[in-house]
Amino acid sequence: MKTLILLRHGQSVWNLENRFTGWTDVPLSDQGRKEAREAGLKILKEGLMPGYCFTSYLQRAIHTLWIALDAMDRSWLPVVKDWHLNERHYGALQGLDKAVTAEKYGDEQVHIWRRSFDVRPPALSEGDPRLPGGEEKYSALTADELPLTESLADTIERVRPCWEERIAPALHLYDTVLVAAHGNSLRALAKMLLKISDDDIVSLEIPTGSPWLFKLDDRLTPLENRYL
Amino acid sequence: MKTLILLRHGQSVWNLENRFTGWTDVPLSDQGRKEAREAGLKILKEGLMPGYCFTSYLQRAIHTLWIALDAMDRSWLPVVKDWHLNERHYGALQGLDKAVTAEKYGDEQVHIWRRSFDVRPPALSEGDPRLPGGEEKYSALTADELPLTESLADTIERVRPCWEERIAPALHLYDTVLVAAHGNSLRALAKMLLKISDDDIVSLEIPTGSPWLFKLDDRLTPLENRYL
Repeated sequence: MKTLILLRHGQSVWNLENRFTGWTDVPLSDQGRKEAREAGLKILKEGLMPGYCFTSYLQRAIHTLWIALDAMDRSWLPVVKDWHLNERHYGALQGLDKAVTAEKYGDEQVHIWRRSFDVRPPALSEGDPRLPGGEEKYSALTADELPLTESLADTIERVRPCWEERIAPALHLYDTVLVAAHGNSLRALAKMLLKISDDDIVSLEIPTGSPWLFKLDDRLTPLENRYL
Repeated sequence: MKTLILLRHGQSVWNLENRFTGWTDVPLSDQGRKEAREAGLKILKEGLMPGYCFTSYLQRAIHTLWIALDAMDRSWLPVVKDWHLNERHYGALQGLDKAVTAEKYGDEQVHIWRRSFDVRPPALSEGDPRLPGGEEKYSALTADELPLTESLADTIERVRPCWEERIAPALHLYDTVLVAAHGNSLRALAKMLLKISDDDIVSLEIPTGSPWLFKLDDRLTPLENRYL
């Protein structure tokens, strides 16, 4: 039996400010740091010992993992960071206030962008300072890999190779694997694991800072899942 | 041209308390955290961008690296943790007050343990709660690998495979590599790089929190070295 723990990062400063975040690299809030510590303590209390950890290239997920590992006294655990686990890219909405965006485009349009499976928000255009290609950490990525905007469907396809080529192989080597990531990249993993339909995945809410435990058989089919 | 940065961890709480530390996993002091931030800012100011990082299994080195990376806004960089980069194992002296130890064994004996190349302090004996074999993080190591005490010569031989099999290959892949570790594991690297004699290496003092920059040619021969 294998154990996979999915952990959504704690509250970030932009969650507090009600802005679209996506790939913007905002830090955790104090509340988010507290959630991360509590998540680590819950994993420890459950007697779980991750042998391997994954996180994204965004500091709110990286710091959530670091703080959780510290709370478990396991800062020495191996950690792989992979941009494929980043949050859904929110295109030209990134950085905008959610209420202002709703006023500008209408509630219905914003609802479609946020809650449809395969509709993309407006893309970043050439020269936009928010383009990820300008960031050092994405400098090794090809133009094809760098998103200008993403639907949830796009995010799922982007996360898939990370599952198939990195996380699933790690689960064959280690009994327990911990993934600290984002609402939509974790939706992607949950959809693949639990075979959730396109219609249902858009409304799946994963709470921040709550370790989500999956018990898997040796073929990585989930036998049970629950929040700690 | 390749760049290697060696960074000794900031002050730990046991440096403050004047106790032999070795493999004891003590945290950084506030001063140590400050030193780590300043080290990161120095690396950033020098315009250096590590492509790959190494640290030990001990939290004072891991946290020094994490804090330095945060100060550089590069928490996303790949980090490999390797117990071969741990501090010299101080055997049965670990945890003892240095002044009390000097009273018990005499100043001269303590000086020999601290400043000779190949004399080991008394070894941990069977049943000692300080034996590293009981710790989860060393559970995959063989009895041969787990030290009960070490001379500086032992530490150097232990660090050597990490240099040859991990750090040197990383330098062939990345222009700049950062190693956050300990006084004696960094002495080991400096001895190999600069071909320092056995007699001279024992008196080489590496300051805490000061990034030590090596410029290397493509065969990893040092062309220059200086502290930032």
